[in-house]
Amino acid sequence: MKIAEIAPPWFPVPPPGYGGVELVVAQLADRLSERHDVTLFGAAGSCTAAKLVTTSLDPPDAALVGNPWLDAHHAISAYLRIQDEGFDLVHDHSGIVGPALASLLCGSPPVVHTLHGPWNELARHYYAAIDQYVHLVAISETQRDANLDVRYAGVVHNGIELERYPCLETKDDFLVYIGRANPDKGPALAIEVARRAGLPLAMVVKKAEPFERAYWDEHVAPELHDEVEVYEDVSHERKVDLLARARAMVFPIQWPEPFGLVMVEAMACGTPVVACAAGAAVELVEDGVTGFLRNSVDDLVQAVAEVDRCPPGACRARVEQRFSAEVMVRGYETMFERLIAGRSAAGSGFPLRR
Amino acid sequence: MKIAEIAPPWFPVPPPGYGGVELVVAQLADRLSERHDVTLFGAAGSCTAAKLVTTSLDPPDAALVGNPWLDAHHAISAYLRIQDEGFDLVHDHSGIVGPALASLLCGSPPVVHTLHGPWNELARHYYAAIDQYVHLVAISETQRDANLDVRYAGVVHNGIELERYPCLETKDDFLVYIGRANPDKGPALAIEVARRAGLPLAMVVKKAEPFERAYWDEHVAPELHDEVEVYEDVSHERKVDLLARARAMVFPIQWPEPFGLVMVEAMACGTPVVACAAGAAVELVEDGVTGFLRNSVDDLVQAVAEVDRCPPGACRARVEQRFSAEVMVRGYETMFERLIAGRSAAGSGFPLRR
Repeated sequence: MKIAEIAPPWFPVPPPGYGGVELVVAQLADRLSERHDVTLFGAAGSCTAAKLVTTSLDPPDAALVGNPWLDAHHAISAYLRIQDEGFDLVHDHSGIVGPALASLLCGSPPVVHTLHGPWNELARHYYAAIDQYVHLVAISETQRDANLDVRYAGVVHNGIELERYPCLETKDDFLVYIGRANPDKGPALAIEVARRAGLPLAMVVKKAEPFERAYWDEHVAPELHDEVEVYEDVSHERKVDLLARARAMVFPIQWPEPFGLVMVEAMACGTPVVACAAGAAVELVEDGVTGFLRNSVDDLVQAVAEVDRCPPGACRARVEQRFSAEVMVRGYETMFERLIAGRSAAGSGFPLRR
Repeated sequence: MKIAEIAPPWFPVPPPGYGGVELVVAQLADRLSERHDVTLFGAAGSCTAAKLVTTSLDPPDAALVGNPWLDAHHAISAYLRIQDEGFDLVHDHSGIVGPALASLLCGSPPVVHTLHGPWNELARHYYAAIDQYVHLVAISETQRDANLDVRYAGVVHNGIELERYPCLETKDDFLVYIGRANPDKGPALAIEVARRAGLPLAMVVKKAEPFERAYWDEHVAPELHDEVEVYEDVSHERKVDLLARARAMVFPIQWPEPFGLVMVEAMACGTPVVACAAGAAVELVEDGVTGFLRNSVDDLVQAVAEVDRCPPGACRARVEQRFSAEVMVRGYETMFERLIAGRSAAGSGFPLRR
């Protein structure tokens, strides 16, 4: 198959720091390239086994993340080239403009668009207008079930390269938290849970954007104490060292997280996840086996005391079976083959019936 | 010709209040409908002689003006229908996503995109990627000359319906200002000029968006005094009454205004315009004949004292000759005919050579 993978324009692929989407795209581009002719459209500075097309000279600076002019520039640059060169299939992970352009192709070639964001009123309104023209993929059943008013081509879980995540059987006496500094991710709750559980906390935090910094300064910084260590811009090696040695990850999310890759990263390191039962956490964590799903601070504290019931091997096995890069790539590959076959059999077939 | 006119999604066509772009689109849709088969894609609540297609049930609320989800929803809804129905020509006034979708049509049908905004780095970068696929139209020579790195199909000045603007020969002793509350439009400078010229000032102000309100409260409100009257959300009748009776309009712009329709509206009412020599003001106002172009407060005050040198008839005549709806519509119509003829002669001809 001749496949185009379109990454968002904001960070290189793979990302030097934070960037779950770019991490997923990196694995897809690299692994699909082993068997197919793959072109990756990504930010400058990307590094891939696929053919690389960068649509700008530099990756945008942090203040322009999400800027609609850059979103549109990246997407149309990619789609003009796609239209010109001819591809069997396009796999689009980009922002708002990409799936609109995809819709105008009307199935020639088919475009698979992975939904990396949460559902809100504006997103529902938008995708309902185009779901007959692009093949939408949810990254969790939770995300799909949160909006059944659009047509999906399927659900493909995000996956990680297991060999990059060491699994430790013996744990140290501390908890770990990874997330942006915002109310959705509950960093202040994580501090409270660790304090009441009587354990030190290692926090790997992203707070580069202005809102994140403001939230951190006002709501999280006042809660810090000697038993909390804060890390920013950590390397992959540093991150997995913390994840693998921690007794558990605390993930007290307060929003419908569409996936939550860090939960999978923790389990891959043999570390159970104590999460709120929100969003895709209920799908990623097997309660009582690879962590616990609890909703009050009291119950989260109690769950931390019981994490020895979740052995490292069980955590690792869950990721191997369901959330590995290999499983993810096979999921997409099967879908791509089906869509290309369907297209040959029935013409473009657009718009589709629900 | 079967023509699609695509308005922005933010305000109905014509606009109930502020909305220069929607006013221009209203005239184009109405007048082109006299001779052609025209479909207008506009916000709910629009009223037109063309066939109307509204892409949403309600116009968006003020807080969502410029929202990229709504921009994308409106544009793809319009272009999917355009692709389905077949048009001879598309005339797009919409936001960022419209011209990207237009580019993917590669000239079938040709798309004319009118540039209603100012040039900035992001806009330059974006339009440079698509100028070979859409026919860009500048609304002033000033705007065109500010960026000669893209290909233009031409310049067509905005125009107004002269019959809706009464021209008064006898003026009252006050000045008028119309504009948004932001530093580009210089509302505080207008107050200073009027005060030093010893004349009352009528201000018609838009300050619905949060930034505008904040700017007004901090920088303009403290300058108000008894001789300044402030109007918001005025009807067309109220606006032209103020414009026609005023001795002059003060328009101390501090940015490269791409057009500035209110200057034309003032002149149509026989009212000279005292403006800063920035942006398209230098093209709209004939210095010493229909107003004055001056850059310091001292010089603006001096110019106000001399506006009797600019007779109402001369102001009106300039609009009749260069900035009427009739002139504008003829300008676009000629361009549309040329593009359609060129397409039949040479196939789609995209991408174009510079």
